[in-house]
Amino acid sequence: MLHMQNLLLITDIPGYSPQISRLISMMNYARFTTLEAVKDLTQAELDYLLDAKSNSIGALLLHFAAVEYAYQVSTFEQRELNEEELLIWGPALELGKVGQEQIKGHELEYYLHQLDEVRNRTLEFFKSVNDDWLDTEEDFWYEKKANYYFMWFHVFEDELNHRGQIRLIRNRLKVK
Amino acid sequence: MLHMQNLLLITDIPGYSPQISRLISMMNYARFTTLEAVKDLTQAELDYLLDAKSNSIGALLLHFAAVEYAYQVSTFEQRELNEEELLIWGPALELGKVGQEQIKGHELEYYLHQLDEVRNRTLEFFKSVNDDWLDTEEDFWYEKKANYYFMWFHVFEDELNHRGQIRLIRNRLKVK
Repeated sequence: MLHMQNLLLITDIPGYSPQISRLISMMNYARFTTLEAVKDLTQAELDYLLDAKSNSIGALLLHFAAVEYAYQVSTFEQRELNEEELLIWGPALELGKVGQEQIKGHELEYYLHQLDEVRNRTLEFFKSVNDDWLDTEEDFWYEKKANYYFMWFHVFEDELNHRGQIRLIRNRLKVK
Repeated sequence: MLHMQNLLLITDIPGYSPQISRLISMMNYARFTTLEAVKDLTQAELDYLLDAKSNSIGALLLHFAAVEYAYQVSTFEQRELNEEELLIWGPALELGKVGQEQIKGHELEYYLHQLDEVRNRTLEFFKSVNDDWLDTEEDFWYEKKANYYFMWFHVFEDELNHRGQIRLIRNRLKVK
């Protein structure tokens, strides 16, 4: 993880423009808390379902990588996910029943590796753009315009939302 | 709620400096999703406990107002909460058992009113500062420095974390 020494500073990061730096600072802290929330979990714990409707912690972790990948594609490559990518990321994007069926049996390292790979790609992409890029607007939810700053804010606000759920599930694990 | 027309834009807001505007944009969106997540809940639903360890949705709502109030006091007034304030906000800050015992029996309007009052105060405070203020650093967690941008990021990242839990609890309500 980049710049852990500045974990509690939303500030400039060498190699990135000012607003991009602040965005990355927030993404870094969100990710730090995610990693803390899943530390030392076993495969059985990562697969655990609170109830029939629940997402496993493993599926939520892969969801973070999938969402981030999807926004790389939409904002940096300005396209939709292709069929091959949907095969890889579809269950993690969708969660629910398909996530329960298809995302399981992995150790923590598997998820952490996926998260790192995707995050490193984001950090490379961000080097290529500047603050003006964040102001780019596109049609989005509720028949409103969203800008790229919002879309990347959404990437980490979705992670924070599910991190809250991970903490709740972790406190109620009933596996050895 | 301020500036709902720009709900999906992290951008300038009249009357606020550029970084403060972006921070408020993110706080606004986080609050919008909180309000969506609790829409039309009854008193019994707001008091519902998933299990003996759970926080009620009502307690989590009051927690958002309490945390925001506490960061107003620490960053704008540079002091700690006094005894009177701790009587008012203590249970909502602490949650857990004391939250379960002391925060219940309220209708949704009660919580929404508290959230609005505190938020309006924040928006007034933010008018009085600029981007440089966000860079102010103080000793904080993990023996590290945090800046005010981080502390206010934390206010909404904590809300997003618990909003994830609110959604999970709402999907499992077992009251009429």
